[in-house]
Amino acid sequence: MSTPAVEDVLELHKRSRGKYEIVSKVPVNSREDLAKSYTPGVAYVSEAIKANREMAYEYTTKSNTIAIISDGTRVLGLGNIGAEAGLPVMEGKAILFKKLGGVDAIPICIRTTDENEIVKFVENISPNFGAINLEDIESPKVFRIQDRLSKTLDIPVFHDDRQGTAVSVLAALKNALKLSGKGKNARIVVNGAGSAGFGIIQLLSFSGYKNLLAVDSKGIIYKDRPDGLQDYKKEVAEITNAGNESGDLKDAISNADVFIGVSTPDVFKKEFVHEMSQKPIIFALANPVPEISYADAIQAGAFIAATGRSDAPNQVNNTVAFPGIFRGMLDARAKGVNLDMLCAAANEIANSVGRGLSPENIIPSVTNKKQVVKTMSAVASSVASKAIETNMARHNIDPEFVKNNAKMLIKRYWRIESRILQKTNSAVSSGGGTQHV
Amino acid sequence: MSTPAVEDVLELHKRSRGKYEIVSKVPVNSREDLAKSYTPGVAYVSEAIKANREMAYEYTTKSNTIAIISDGTRVLGLGNIGAEAGLPVMEGKAILFKKLGGVDAIPICIRTTDENEIVKFVENISPNFGAINLEDIESPKVFRIQDRLSKTLDIPVFHDDRQGTAVSVLAALKNALKLSGKGKNARIVVNGAGSAGFGIIQLLSFSGYKNLLAVDSKGIIYKDRPDGLQDYKKEVAEITNAGNESGDLKDAISNADVFIGVSTPDVFKKEFVHEMSQKPIIFALANPVPEISYADAIQAGAFIAATGRSDAPNQVNNTVAFPGIFRGMLDARAKGVNLDMLCAAANEIANSVGRGLSPENIIPSVTNKKQVVKTMSAVASSVASKAIETNMARHNIDPEFVKNNAKMLIKRYWRIESRILQKTNSAVSSGGGTQHV
Repeated sequence: MSTPAVEDVLELHKRSRGKYEIVSKVPVNSREDLAKSYTPGVAYVSEAIKANREMAYEYTTKSNTIAIISDGTRVLGLGNIGAEAGLPVMEGKAILFKKLGGVDAIPICIRTTDENEIVKFVENISPNFGAINLEDIESPKVFRIQDRLSKTLDIPVFHDDRQGTAVSVLAALKNALKLSGKGKNARIVVNGAGSAGFGIIQLLSFSGYKNLLAVDSKGIIYKDRPDGLQDYKKEVAEITNAGNESGDLKDAISNADVFIGVSTPDVFKKEFVHEMSQKPIIFALANPVPEISYADAIQAGAFIAATGRSDAPNQVNNTVAFPGIFRGMLDARAKGVNLDMLCAAANEIANSVGRGLSPENIIPSVTNKKQVVKTMSAVASSVASKAIETNMARHNIDPEFVKNNAKMLIKRYWRIESRILQKTNSAVSSGGGTQHV
Repeated sequence: MSTPAVEDVLELHKRSRGKYEIVSKVPVNSREDLAKSYTPGVAYVSEAIKANREMAYEYTTKSNTIAIISDGTRVLGLGNIGAEAGLPVMEGKAILFKKLGGVDAIPICIRTTDENEIVKFVENISPNFGAINLEDIESPKVFRIQDRLSKTLDIPVFHDDRQGTAVSVLAALKNALKLSGKGKNARIVVNGAGSAGFGIIQLLSFSGYKNLLAVDSKGIIYKDRPDGLQDYKKEVAEITNAGNESGDLKDAISNADVFIGVSTPDVFKKEFVHEMSQKPIIFALANPVPEISYADAIQAGAFIAATGRSDAPNQVNNTVAFPGIFRGMLDARAKGVNLDMLCAAANEIANSVGRGLSPENIIPSVTNKKQVVKTMSAVASSVASKAIETNMARHNIDPEFVKNNAKMLIKRYWRIESRILQKTNSAVSSGGGTQHV
């Protein structure tokens, strides 16, 4: 995947004036239609929900709609760029939610960057949504926001940079370790302790991988490191590094079985591979430029390599995770999201690779349509099932129904989308601007 | 229009799980597509907007998207029913925005009813939208909210209950007075001084109708009324009742040329008609049960009668106003909305009736497709033009382009909608719930 030309990207966005639009799910062609979907008939629906707030899941878009919330402080690699500049990214994410999970997602970039204001904002907007996705908010603020909201809201508050990434990494790791004949005792080094690093460490630890080392810009994280650890880094120190090692990245990867980079470009040197154990596994996930390129990692002796890029084998990326996870949470009308649900999602993603499993194929593709339907429906079903099992579900739904429903919704949307884009491609504009319509 | 059966309404909402969904305006079928609309290409768009925030109008959905904001305190005739119960109403409104104006509207029902929190919430959500529509929020709180937001935001903050209703009333009134041979000196009684009443009085006064009387539940409003007038009722007293009359509704309508009711059912008695001047005009707009029925008004001698209902001639309702007004504001990238723009909208609506003007046809239909396209495009064009003229526009757009663009967008959406609903009617579900999909 090479980066497209600036002018092509700007032209695409200018022509369509952004990337999503609203359509009706019900007919409004006659007075009779209007009387049912709007006044006076709609009053019956309002009264039913007034009597029992939970009926919003039965009768409104809450059942299938989530909000993507960002404050624009950590968008892509661009840093704090503000609400408006974050919007194109969140719009892109929104259409992936629909395309890959049949989930309606509304991108909401908010003006404030204040923690308390963000919390209050999300609480106030929550009635409309079946789940919240926090996106591209700076850490560690975002960890506190997620923790606070998870306590006050009765819907899942997901943090994709942390949890979606962790699920895809765990899925890929399971397959990679299986191929290398290694297990839960593997020595795993996670480089980078931002949102992704923290999420990966938490989920791996919860899944039973206990031989973990976390490394940040100051070196290996260990208890009582003299620079003083922030709250969440204290938690990292608690669940990693049982041997209380110290040193730099090179010290950490000595005899490591797995390197997982969620840090910065080019920090993993080819010679580092030689310091690692037999059949080294290297996930270099910094985006768009990885810690080491796929080609260099393989050339230096990696048994398995993966990056976040689509132009090499093994693209490990949260896109394989979030659509199915939200699909399952919505169908179970989940009250929250927990690590059990995330593990269930990772298992299904790993299993979805099936018989094609090989060192060049450890994670399902998100551009192969058949694979998408298989993976997302399996993840949705498993997440819903685990939500029910762990008392996180309002709705005791049959997991088999969730699977079939996911397949149906995803395929239905593909049919709709092709119909719309076929016929209206040149006419998608929304007024204003240049008058070339 | 009779009220539909409860079970039909609930079944419709349950089957579709609410009334709107998201679709993509751009293709995302290949890695190349993704690289342009999502990472890495989207970074160019973010950078362009970071450099100049106004470019959000060029490249994002801000250009065509508005938020419908309600706190659920004054929904239909149901009173304070809360956020979730308000959602079905706002969803219905959202699909009308698209159907009649090609405008993407996101329904947002918020948890708080606190004035300061609502103001802060709307400020924080504003970057995503080209305009805000306040809906079904209790008065007088909503007047203060609108005033405050109009000062702090650089996009229009519209209050449909107040301003949309006022525009449709002014349009109908112009045509009714023309038919009755009366003019700006007509004695006009407005019964009801909530959002709609206040909006009507402000707009009529601004338009040069100076012989106005406002009546609330305590009788005619006049300066220094002993019960003490709230702030906005003081403003009403300032711009009405030059003769400082007092008394009840019956006193007010004595020799009145026009009665406009935005109050409660059945308060206008048939015998009141006889107290009025020659060729009396009666707009009984309480919904769904008017102050006096169309049939009773005509029978009692009204020259022209109108209600908010679709089962009698002359449905005077904000639906004829808001889609075109927002279409025009979006295309002009308006910074706000003023009374000049509202007057321009009312003129176009009145003119759109054209040669069909008669006592039974004083306002355009919103279910006649040809009439909708004609009315909404004319309103959009005129609102944009007036926004430019009054320095309320960012974008010096050709009003003729706005008109054609409106026609194109409305018709385009109708084509899309018929395609979607034809093919997927039975399959629109969104998981969870009953398993009858």
